[in-house]
This record gives sequence, structure tokens and C-alpha cells, in this order.
Amino acid sequence: MRQRHKPWADDFLKENSHIVIPESNLQKGKWKELFGNSNPIHVEIGTGKGQFITGMAEQFPNINFIGIEVVKSIVVNAAQKVIESGQKNIILLNEDANDLREFFAEHEIATIYLNFSDPWPKNRHEKRRLTYHTFLEQYKNVLMTNGELIFKTDNQGLFEYSLVSFSKFGMNFEEVNLDLHKLHDPENIMTEYEEKFSAKGQRIYRSRVTF
Amino acid sequence: MRQRHKPWADDFLKENSHIVIPESNLQKGKWKELFGNSNPIHVEIGTGKGQFITGMAEQFPNINFIGIEVVKSIVVNAAQKVIESGQKNIILLNEDANDLREFFAEHEIATIYLNFSDPWPKNRHEKRRLTYHTFLEQYKNVLMTNGELIFKTDNQGLFEYSLVSFSKFGMNFEEVNLDLHKLHDPENIMTEYEEKFSAKGQRIYRSRVTF
Ligand SMILES: C[S@@+](CC[C@H](N)C(=O)[O-])C[C@H]1O[C@@H](n2cnc3c(N)ncnc32)[C@H](O)[C@@H]1O
Ligand SMILES: C[S@@+](CC[C@H](N)C(=O)[O-])C[C@H]1O[C@@H](n2cnc3c(N)ncnc32)[C@H](O)[C@@H]1O
Repeated sequence: MRQRHKPWADDFLKENSHIVIPESNLQKGKWKELFGNSNPIHVEIGTGKGQFITGMAEQFPNINFIGIEVVKSIVVNAAQKVIESGQKNIILLNEDANDLREFFAEHEIATIYLNFSDPWPKNRHEKRRLTYHTFLEQYKNVLMTNGELIFKTDNQGLFEYSLVSFSKFGMNFEEVNLDLHKLHDPENIMTEYEEKFSAKGQRIYRSRVTF
Repeated sequence: MRQRHKPWADDFLKENSHIVIPESNLQKGKWKELFGNSNPIHVEIGTGKGQFITGMAEQFPNINFIGIEVVKSIVVNAAQKVIESGQKNIILLNEDANDLREFFAEHEIATIYLNFSDPWPKNRHEKRRLTYHTFLEQYKNVLMTNGELIFKTDNQGLFEYSLVSFSKFGMNFEEVNLDLHKLHDPENIMTEYEEKFSAKGQRIYRSRVTF
């Protein structure tokens, strides 16, 4: 995602530190306390401009959502959406989600969402794909027993790769959908990328897997 | 597949009993002897008119192929193709492949092909799908260690179902291809259905899995 430089971003983030939490590693194991309830916690990696996570937070007020987005100017967009929505069940982290165990204790998370993750199509970049086995290892660690990894993408190659990777890791497939928008599903919350690619007639793939 | 009644079919099959083997259950465990060599044996379930199996037998002369087709008037078509091809590494069975263990001993088979198997879309017909767990159990029994199940279909629902079914059975995915004809693969031998559906612009899916 290309973004203009936003010189006011630092000030904005400081003012909104109840939404975009600084030093989030200090919250490890204590997210319930921050949310003030013991509802399940769902984490999205690579939240982008926040359309999915705010939509989900509105649809599921009894779930707490944490969105992780590494690019500062993008997390600012997401934070603006959270403010507009008025939802209290969303928190954002402006962090590199390279190791979820920095931020979450074992079994602290109920669901992880990967939405339109960068495909890294070259073989030599396989290790960067968010469905590479080193990432699955982390997800397994922070997810509750039977916790789900839910993955949406338009990228055929990444989806094929990921199904093989899940299988080799011994994961269980709960659902595979090879054309999510073939039938209208009013419960499906679209991400920015999903809206863009499905409008162009691209297929959207989704899988739900457990460890 | 709709077929005209062929009154001469019985005579034809009797004359060609070296191709369409009668009493094939008596060959259980002894297929090598019938082929007269110890090349690996590949089995196709629901061979149809035989385009795939004859094409494969030409491409891989050092593999022995056995095609199982339950409909007599269709197996006749396949046998005619085998005769035309002149290949000696193909045998056909005019049998119901409902239990492969009737025809094959443990680990006798190297590869099983399911090509455009009937989708049985209704939930109450799940047990008839050739990727239902009772069938996987049989395939596991007759396949060699690391033997492959290779499945092609145009049917989105059946393919989704099958990936979940393979995963729940603890199988390993070697390959998932969500658009087989996107790139031209000169090694891919098309079946009759594959030719028809891909000409209509339908996607063809393929998976290769092991137990
Ligand atoms: C292709 S975009 C998809 C955005 C959004 N999920 C959607 O579907 O519209 C991927 C996003 O993931 C973010 N991202 C990539 N790697 C990340 C990482 N290691 N940690 C956090 N965010 C990351 C990128 O900055 C980008 O905003
Ligand atoms: C949809 S057609 C596909 C034919 C061919 N494989 C192709 O791809 O063009 C399915 C074929 O499987 C055969 N078939 C279905 N159930 C079978 C069974 N239990 N045993 C053997 N053949 C079967 C049918 O008679 C039919 O010829």
C-alpha cells in the first residue's frame, strides 16, 4: 500500500494511545485486563486501513479484536476508522508481527486472521510468507486449543502453497472455500483488498484451519 | 455418460478378455504376473472412455495401468482405444470399484487416479463420494508407502470437500493446483471430461496427496 508521508502521525498516535497501544509487549498475557473483560481475543496480522477489523468489531461486540500493522501511516488510517466506529473492542498495534510470542502469552488468542498477506512469490522468499512453518509454529503457540487460523487471499499461488504448508504441519482443515463471493454471504466482512480484487472479478479464497 | 445400448458388447468383451479382464478378483496380488514384469501399477477409478489411461500408457511405457469402469458400454469404448493404441501396459476392469481390496492386495498399487468423479452434491450422498473417508481407508490399504492419490475435477464443491476430507484423514498434500490449465503443461494428459469442461472455460483443479 502506497502512503503519503504523514508528519502529524506521531502526534496523532500519542493522542490515541488507548487505541494504538505503545510498548505492546508489556501487555503480553494481560490483554484481558486492558480490555476489561474476558471475552475471546481475535488477532489480525497486517490490518491495513482497518476496514475488516472495525467491521468485525461491530458485528461481534462480544469479541475483542487486536490488529497488527507495521506501517505507521497505514495504522493511522485504521485508527481513524476505529475512532469513527466508536467501538471499544478494538486495539491496534503498530508493530512488526514477525514473532507473535513477543506480544501474546501461550493460548491467549482464540482466532488469528491473515487477510491478503503479501504473497512473496519468489521461492527464495518462502520464509517470509505468513503461512511458512515457522509462522505456523508461533500461531500454534499463542492460539488456544482448537483456536482457528482464518486466511483470505486472492493470490492463487499463495493459497496453493498455504494449503500444502498447513497439511505438512499436520493441521486440520475446517473449511476450504475456492470462490468466496460466488454466493453472497452477508456475514462476510470485506477487507480493502478484497473489495478491490473481487470488483475486478478475481476469485477470493478462504480457509479455516486448526492445529 | 449416456450410452447407446450395445448388443454386441458381450461378444466384444469375450474376444478381448486379454484387455478387459474377467474375474479380476482372482488376480488379486498377482497383477505383476499378468503384466509379465514388475513395473509399478497405477489404477484409475471411473476410466470412462479411456482417453486418459491410453494417453498415460503411451507417455509412461514403464508403468502398468489398470482402469476400472463399471458401465459395460463405456468400458467397450475404452477397450477400443486401448486396441488402437497398441499399448500392452493397460488392462481394464469392467467392475464396480466400490472396494478396491477385492481386486488388489495390500501395497500392490503405486498410484490411484480419480478423474472427474461423480460429485454427489447432496449431503445425504456424502458416503458415495470417492474421497469419503471409507474410500480413503481402502486406498491407504492397497497403496504402497508414499503411494499417491491424484485427483482432478472441475467441481468446486467436490474439490473443497475432498481437501477437507484428506486433511481430516491426516493425509499429506504434495500439490494443490487451483487452475491446472492456467499454464500449458505438455505432460498433462486430459480426460474426456477435462477437455469438455476446460473448453467451456471451467477451471480444472488437481491435488496430489499421500497417506
Ligand atoms: C497486502 S496488504 C493487505 C491489507 C489488508 N489486510 C487488506 O486485506 O486489505 C498487507 C498489509 O500487511 C502489512 N504487513 C506486512 N508485513 C507485516 C508484518 N510483519 N507485521 C505487520 N504488518 C505487516 C502491510 O503493511 C500491509 O498493510
Ligand atoms: C463423470 S465420469 C468421468 C469419466 C472420465 N474419468 C473423465 O474424466 O472423462 C465418471 C465415470 O466413473 C464411472 N464410475 C462411477 N462409479 C464407478 C464405480 N463405483 N466403479 C467404477 N466406475 C465408476 C462412471 O461410469 C463414469 O464413466
